[in-house]
Amino acid sequence: MSPVKVFGHPMSTNVARVLLCLEEVGAEYELVTVDFLAGEHSSPQHVQRNPFGKIPAFQDGELVLFESRAIAKYILRKYRTADLDLLAESSGIEESAMVDVWTEVEAQQYYPAISPVVFECIIFPVMRGAATNQIVVDESLDRLRGVLGVYEARLEKSRYLAGDSVSFADLNHFPFTFYFMATPYASLFDEFPKVKAWWEGLMARPAVQRVCKNMPTEF
Amino acid sequence: MSPVKVFGHPMSTNVARVLLCLEEVGAEYELVTVDFLAGEHSSPQHVQRNPFGKIPAFQDGELVLFESRAIAKYILRKYRTADLDLLAESSGIEESAMVDVWTEVEAQQYYPAISPVVFECIIFPVMRGAATNQIVVDESLDRLRGVLGVYEARLEKSRYLAGDSVSFADLNHFPFTFYFMATPYASLFDEFPKVKAWWEGLMARPAVQRVCKNMPTEF
Repeated sequence: MSPVKVFGHPMSTNVARVLLCLEEVGAEYELVTVDFLAGEHSSPQHVQRNPFGKIPAFQDGELVLFESRAIAKYILRKYRTADLDLLAESSGIEESAMVDVWTEVEAQQYYPAISPVVFECIIFPVMRGAATNQIVVDESLDRLRGVLGVYEARLEKSRYLAGDSVSFADLNHFPFTFYFMATPYASLFDEFPKVKAWWEGLMARPAVQRVCKNMPTEF
Repeated sequence: MSPVKVFGHPMSTNVARVLLCLEEVGAEYELVTVDFLAGEHSSPQHVQRNPFGKIPAFQDGELVLFESRAIAKYILRKYRTADLDLLAESSGIEESAMVDVWTEVEAQQYYPAISPVVFECIIFPVMRGAATNQIVVDESLDRLRGVLGVYEARLEKSRYLAGDSVSFADLNHFPFTFYFMATPYASLFDEFPKVKAWWEGLMARPAVQRVCKNMPTEF
């Protein structure tokens, strides 16, 4: 069986989400580099894989998928075992609902708060040579502080976001939090000891370490 | 068995998403009004249900959920039958992956393009008395035109977004498209005949009609 293919670049947060799922389940895969800094994601070849011209795209035999969260779920279902069900779908609809709740919290509450800090402090300066908009940073940090307060309360009740086992909901936090920790504001997490311990626990996972080593930490 | 409860307001797009799923599966439910225009979503009572103080929240016996997409999936799983599986999870991982792909496309490509038009033309003027920012509207319409071009190509190949059956991916487009059709830019859809027919097909669904009748159409 030929390995599945990921089309993208390991520096991209959306690609990192997919790679982390592949590493967590121990799947064999091939990363085909699409250099988005050089505009290769807009090439006709890549647009055939993803009509929106974004990375990543994914191929498993005849099946071609795009949208990183959808790809990630496909991977977690395909390689699911009795011991490794990161969507909790075999545990019952209440358990999988908790994974969905905290996966959506990442997308709807956490990401809109943390991502502007990463964009303003790292992505825009490095990719566009733009100055950091400190007003955006400060507003986002305030918002993130509020979100992390809710997470702290949640993690006082359960070890991970969706319950006492790690799930896709936790893994989804990796890419942007990883880059946030390279901004001057990483110490915000010190205000939330349960959140900080949860993050350190995620970072210590061997799969996370394998994905990290291809992501830049200095800008 | 007592009916499930939705806490929210039928005017809210995120509440409408949940109500539509309940109507599609024919579930008995109770809508408990949380008047977000009066700030009731920030009340301690509601924050106990949703720690982020947003609507909707959802209750099924002891289970309390928040985040409308997570609630919607729980409903579609709970009331799933052999004939009615709007997540396609019983069809196989490739079929459910296509539902996930187009559900994510709605969230990541369609919503960011269509929602600013609705915010600028309806929500901000009505709720905040603010003027419409025409630059934002025009940029969003350009972006939406690009997205609808991809949809048109997709709907030339399959009747619905994820395949030949209606799915959660299609339903997710209802709330914002409904309000978009009340803006001065509804005719944009005329440029995309397959998309327009798909939308009219969605609007003709009895479940959609039942949800619509509690949503305002004049502003």
